[in-house]
Amino acid sequence: MAKLTPRSENYSQWYNELVVKADLAEQSAVRGCMVIKPYGYAIWEKMQRILDEKFKETGVQNAYFPLLIPKNFLSREAEHVEGFAKECAVVTHHRLMKDPEGNGVVVDPEARLEEELIIRPTSETIIWNTYKNWITSWRDLPILCNQWCNVMRWEMRTRLFLRTAEFLWQEGHTAHATSQEAQEEAIRMVNVYADFARNYMAMPVVVGHKSPNERFAGALDTLTIEAMMQDGKALQAGTSHFLGQNFAKAFDVQFANKEGALEYVWATSWGVSTRLMGALIMCHSDDNGLVLPPALAPHQVVMVPIFGSAEQLEAILAKMETLKARLAAKGISVKIDSRDNLRPGFKFAEWEMKGVPVRVAIGGRDLENGTVEVARRDTLTKESLSFEGVENYIETLLKDIQANIYKKAEDFRAANVQKVDSWDEFKEKIQNGGFLLCHWDGTKETEEKIKAETKATIRCIPEDSFICEEEGKCIYSGKPSSRRVIFAISY
Amino acid sequence: MAKLTPRSENYSQWYNELVVKADLAEQSAVRGCMVIKPYGYAIWEKMQRILDEKFKETGVQNAYFPLLIPKNFLSREAEHVEGFAKECAVVTHHRLMKDPEGNGVVVDPEARLEEELIIRPTSETIIWNTYKNWITSWRDLPILCNQWCNVMRWEMRTRLFLRTAEFLWQEGHTAHATSQEAQEEAIRMVNVYADFARNYMAMPVVVGHKSPNERFAGALDTLTIEAMMQDGKALQAGTSHFLGQNFAKAFDVQFANKEGALEYVWATSWGVSTRLMGALIMCHSDDNGLVLPPALAPHQVVMVPIFGSAEQLEAILAKMETLKARLAAKGISVKIDSRDNLRPGFKFAEWEMKGVPVRVAIGGRDLENGTVEVARRDTLTKESLSFEGVENYIETLLKDIQANIYKKAEDFRAANVQKVDSWDEFKEKIQNGGFLLCHWDGTKETEEKIKAETKATIRCIPEDSFICEEEGKCIYSGKPSSRRVIFAISY
Repeated sequence: MAKLTPRSENYSQWYNELVVKADLAEQSAVRGCMVIKPYGYAIWEKMQRILDEKFKETGVQNAYFPLLIPKNFLSREAEHVEGFAKECAVVTHHRLMKDPEGNGVVVDPEARLEEELIIRPTSETIIWNTYKNWITSWRDLPILCNQWCNVMRWEMRTRLFLRTAEFLWQEGHTAHATSQEAQEEAIRMVNVYADFARNYMAMPVVVGHKSPNERFAGALDTLTIEAMMQDGKALQAGTSHFLGQNFAKAFDVQFANKEGALEYVWATSWGVSTRLMGALIMCHSDDNGLVLPPALAPHQVVMVPIFGSAEQLEAILAKMETLKARLAAKGISVKIDSRDNLRPGFKFAEWEMKGVPVRVAIGGRDLENGTVEVARRDTLTKESLSFEGVENYIETLLKDIQANIYKKAEDFRAANVQKVDSWDEFKEKIQNGGFLLCHWDGTKETEEKIKAETKATIRCIPEDSFICEEEGKCIYSGKPSSRRVIFAISY
Repeated sequence: MAKLTPRSENYSQWYNELVVKADLAEQSAVRGCMVIKPYGYAIWEKMQRILDEKFKETGVQNAYFPLLIPKNFLSREAEHVEGFAKECAVVTHHRLMKDPEGNGVVVDPEARLEEELIIRPTSETIIWNTYKNWITSWRDLPILCNQWCNVMRWEMRTRLFLRTAEFLWQEGHTAHATSQEAQEEAIRMVNVYADFARNYMAMPVVVGHKSPNERFAGALDTLTIEAMMQDGKALQAGTSHFLGQNFAKAFDVQFANKEGALEYVWATSWGVSTRLMGALIMCHSDDNGLVLPPALAPHQVVMVPIFGSAEQLEAILAKMETLKARLAAKGISVKIDSRDNLRPGFKFAEWEMKGVPVRVAIGGRDLENGTVEVARRDTLTKESLSFEGVENYIETLLKDIQANIYKKAEDFRAANVQKVDSWDEFKEKIQNGGFLLCHWDGTKETEEKIKAETKATIRCIPEDSFICEEEGKCIYSGKPSSRRVIFAISY
């Protein structure tokens, strides 16, 4: 198996190669749209299962709304249309016909739609048009719906998982009687995301508010979880929006309150997407390939027999089946790689590339000695252990790995966060990546000038980490500021 | 809650009303596209979970392929394009812009795609174009992929769940080294569907082959499961196709066999969709609403307190929580309906409409006597039982209900299957619905004439039920035939 370009040489190329070589995804025949391969999809499915359960624990129910949205819906909310109109795939016809000139099929000009339909870039508009019929009284609230689906945003530059024209995601859309309830919901869900990122993806994240400039199109407040990748860039991994009454007003959704008076409904929306796959990869992986946290690995343990004869293979596989059963009883998933046409070294490299947390090898000498070799993916170290009881060791090891890769990412982040107080220092340091904690005067103008000069943006006004409430002066304008915000160059 | 139109009066209207009143789905603002409401989606999710597990037990893995397909892909396989071209939603542009005349947004004429893209009506073409890169040797085979996704077929007449422009489904696409392996796979999967229909949906089905005329566009053989609805019409509930080498040839997918010679790959595809929801509803439900098999009910038991005072309510709810915990320990899902603004009678009717298999009511007298009232949805009967140990009774009752509704559907079907041997008898009987087992001369011409005169089609050439291998004469042409096939009017 050919090696990856090292991260130090070309981080971007390393990523692109890894995604393909680890069998996660590939480009399709359609510009910007990816094929998610079975191994990559198995990781996404694990993410889905865990998140779905967490959503349901908060009372959220799943539903499904149409893929296509009438064009006029988009323009009902002024900022929303501004944010999405430029990247919409538009359906204009509903039929093909034989090419009169004999070349396959052409669009049937008679089958033009009266009104064009757009493929959902996000579903606020069609959902609030639906909620209008579901809500009349305060008793109908809250509505807590989520859908797992595909969406499409016609991005000009795409990268597997990180930015694709079509992507998979979940979008939660909730409706509430009061502003406070809706704001609490938006906070609750961003915290579900933060918890998932930290405890399952083993990825440290900062929770914070977006600056007005970086908000979702149509939101009054956008909460975000921001992670730091190994190149020091920031990645927005999930967002939760307080939408105020904007969509209720755009689609005329009112409810009778307890006193019988009509009020507009308060809204949130929140989502994470297959972009999380990109974050997961870039947060932990190394020059040998993917490094998966045990909590999300399709196979937590892979077993590779090292054999001379068919008889020996049989004896080794019997031991492996025994160990597999013992591990399965602990809820640990195991893959036995018994392929007979590949050398152990090739298999080792392949499973390293695919990020399997623990590798167990058994050879002829192990059979004699009652031992197994256990290797861990995160540190690339291995040791020889007694076969008896090794399942307990592996169980603990998986927890260690989960904790270790979190700590490694956290240490990396800690080493790459710094307070910066002058514009010259900012311009110099931002080129090396990392999060810069700086004072900002709170204006859009300053934010835009900083972006224009350095490509850095305000990733968030942190809420739960790096809270730096202190008086200071904006690094750019010198105007007074009462707290630092996080600047970084981002994906 | 307003009553449904009785089935005897207008079956079709009964269905349409039930879908909406049971909170399963509704029409959206987009022609032919439905909104699947949380209660309906919860049933679909149960179906998905069970089927997904069964697929995986056979070695199938999930993946994801693009929503959009280049137009020219469709015409690579001659029959395929014939089958789908007329109902394709076509994407022609990738951007909207502000209307120069000031009315919202319009399609940006500059953003016309070089080649139009169609929204997948099914994914054989894009998947086989992908498989081309995955397959070089016999060692790469078999490939067993499935995807859960949305598809779109621009149907002119739509009905919730049964026929919608957008629907949700799973589509399995497998690649094999030999014809025999592929045929075995197609049979394996239709049997997974039959097992699911019978044991979870409690719906009897006939497994059989479609006549050439009714095959999937591009298949050499289509296997189907056919169910009978309460109006005697047939419903095709799932299909599994042996595609031969048609798609491998269309996309030039060859593999080197063990001898090193190049051969085209053999294919299957198989799918079930949200249409199953329609089948489930129409198979079991009655004039009071939905009847759900316990295996697919989001709530298997609903509990309704009947109370005078707040104090009494508290005591009843405490008992209900105890019983809920006992049932949960048996894996039985329970909903306690403690809403304080609705009368018990209203709640009873609502949960009847929603098809919850078992209803438990506890009132003041029950508190005194240590009893509960247990009602079953399928027979609408109820009885008073001792509170202690009632969880065991309910556990058995759920199994009884599952078996009973299957038997009811099977008895209904048995009463509506008959052998018919003359054309006059056929024309008369087919108007009453049901499955008519008839001899057929095997020609497309006869099949089409029968359809034109009676609307009846050959639902299948049965494989595992109603096998009628016997000599006879075609009911229409009088030509010789060696087995009966099933004719019916279908959804």
